[in-house]
Amino acid sequence: MIDHLTRVRDAMEREGMDVLLVTSPADITWISGFRFNPWERFTVLVVPREGNLRFLLPGFEQDAVASAVPEETELFLYSDDSGDEEAVRACLAGLNRHARLAVRKDTVSLADCERIAALTGTSSLADCGSLLAGLRAVKDEDEIEQIRAASEIADRAAASLIAESVRPGATEAELGGELSRLLRLEGADGSAFEPNVTAGWRSALPHGPDHSRQRGVHPGQDAIQAGELLILDFSVVCGGYCADLSRTHVLGESEERQREVFDTVMRAQREAIDASVAGKTAADVDRAAREVIKESGHDDHFPHKTGHGLGLELHEDPSVSVANDQPLEPGMVFAVEPAIYLEGYGGARVEDVVLVTESGPEVLTDMRAQERLELPLR
Amino acid sequence: MIDHLTRVRDAMEREGMDVLLVTSPADITWISGFRFNPWERFTVLVVPREGNLRFLLPGFEQDAVASAVPEETELFLYSDDSGDEEAVRACLAGLNRHARLAVRKDTVSLADCERIAALTGTSSLADCGSLLAGLRAVKDEDEIEQIRAASEIADRAAASLIAESVRPGATEAELGGELSRLLRLEGADGSAFEPNVTAGWRSALPHGPDHSRQRGVHPGQDAIQAGELLILDFSVVCGGYCADLSRTHVLGESEERQREVFDTVMRAQREAIDASVAGKTAADVDRAAREVIKESGHDDHFPHKTGHGLGLELHEDPSVSVANDQPLEPGMVFAVEPAIYLEGYGGARVEDVVLVTESGPEVLTDMRAQERLELPLR
Repeated sequence: MIDHLTRVRDAMEREGMDVLLVTSPADITWISGFRFNPWERFTVLVVPREGNLRFLLPGFEQDAVASAVPEETELFLYSDDSGDEEAVRACLAGLNRHARLAVRKDTVSLADCERIAALTGTSSLADCGSLLAGLRAVKDEDEIEQIRAASEIADRAAASLIAESVRPGATEAELGGELSRLLRLEGADGSAFEPNVTAGWRSALPHGPDHSRQRGVHPGQDAIQAGELLILDFSVVCGGYCADLSRTHVLGESEERQREVFDTVMRAQREAIDASVAGKTAADVDRAAREVIKESGHDDHFPHKTGHGLGLELHEDPSVSVANDQPLEPGMVFAVEPAIYLEGYGGARVEDVVLVTESGPEVLTDMRAQERLELPLR
Repeated sequence: MIDHLTRVRDAMEREGMDVLLVTSPADITWISGFRFNPWERFTVLVVPREGNLRFLLPGFEQDAVASAVPEETELFLYSDDSGDEEAVRACLAGLNRHARLAVRKDTVSLADCERIAALTGTSSLADCGSLLAGLRAVKDEDEIEQIRAASEIADRAAASLIAESVRPGATEAELGGELSRLLRLEGADGSAFEPNVTAGWRSALPHGPDHSRQRGVHPGQDAIQAGELLILDFSVVCGGYCADLSRTHVLGESEERQREVFDTVMRAQREAIDASVAGKTAADVDRAAREVIKESGHDDHFPHKTGHGLGLELHEDPSVSVANDQPLEPGMVFAVEPAIYLEGYGGARVEDVVLVTESGPEVLTDMRAQERLELPLR
């Protein structure tokens, strides 16, 4: 297996870039293997096409970083006390003014750029955004195993929650909080977003209702009821890698309209997964789901894209959107989450994690858990 | 009470800025009142010194946004389907080329900047970073009430956890997960970071150990033991606003060295809080804590700053660092979290939420809960 740094350097060679100045924590982790959170502090991993890496980061990471990064990495550490000026200067010193320096334009801040430009004497910085996003989109075996582990944790947590806690009268917040607890018990680092449990009319809001302006109203204090549409949507981070799962159910007996909406979403997801093969594009996957939903007359009730790539970040390439005609390749992993939202009534969203392989799509989450809409009333 | 938009416009007048192009979700929420997560999608709130606001955002926010923002806001919505090109063009159209446009350089990405520059025909963008950060650092009554509510949730969750779940043999992940559950039950939106529970040697690592490279090792699977230093560190988000709390305990009987470290941290925190008065600077607060720790001989064991501002973000102004000579003002809210970390042995960190008032510091979290190091063994 070729390591990430080698893949980056090969791509730099192809694209004629001499030095990457990598500032986003996810990119730095992907290249160096070091997981960290600099909070608001300035970090840069300097990746020349040849020679040692240089890594600028807060001094309190010293012990952790030494054991994680390649041995020949030069560390430039600074304390909150003395500020980062001297370390930044030392880290960027001697970068050839005639070298082609690149930053990731979609994540680097303008302030960091101006600082880099001033200290390196460079007026124009190339963009390594598509280079890094493109490499990261194709997972290696280790990464796939991490996402598989995250997906399995998601499955187990959903199954436990449904078996033990989903009952009429439980509040959305209770179920969301219990999901968080179960994820940690199952071995997750945590979540990439707060578990989102919505029932009834609230399930028609993709990200749940906003309670922020109603004082005294807690998010999620609504209790779920038998006969309502119920969506569980949550993420798992495991070994730094993300999975994302949504399940739609009705406690007890469902009604015709609920079944119609659910069945349509299930068919849309099936078509999208079937289209998740090497050679097709991300747009093809989106269109496959959207076509089913359109034919059912719910075109206006599916306002977001069909999915998003999963990796060190919850949303990364490939974006599963009709606007993205990126060809799919073996090793790409993404969430497929078609949905139908009926305002004031309820919604259905079904989300699984799909891996593109040489021999077709492989679903890393347990789709059998979503075969039925209804859950037994206890 | 003067609303945030009025405060922004007054500051624009003072600093000679004509139009702000606000792209960071926290800034947009602070100005408009609308809480949202655009994920990777482009959002801009256009704030001219006079006239209507313009708000570019994903179409799936349509229902939610309409009820939240000021009536005279012009919305520019786009779908994942059609892409944002047309909406972005319309939203930025007609901005006077001779107007002084400003972006927040520390958060706006270079890619967004280049897009804004191209569409508005502006080659140089002013920086509204310190304008917005400075305004946001001074909280109004509503914001203080939200942070107070978040702080009280933190107190209640810590008290419940300690009363019900902290016992020898409980794993760090169990306690972290249970904290997440309790926070939601108590009315939190969620957390700003995964609750971090560490005991023994692991408590000497400010952000806990990194298990990412050890396969089969789950983060937090270590059990806590009687007689070890134990740190609970977690955040609360409530109505969008953050609190941050750390507590240090020993289950059962403590030893001399643990008490010495704990007492030093407690004295450092007391001094830092006493220094949290209008007229002093953020650096004074940091120095007050650092001085106590230095005198105890632990200078090298406190590698981070004393604290950070709290608001819509977990880390915002004022940074409580010796490098920040910003004067404190009534309405500023920050976490005060001195610590001592002894590698291989354990750490102590005590963190409370402090509000600067006209009449001195007010602590929004319950400091009495941390009076004693030892917890009874049950």
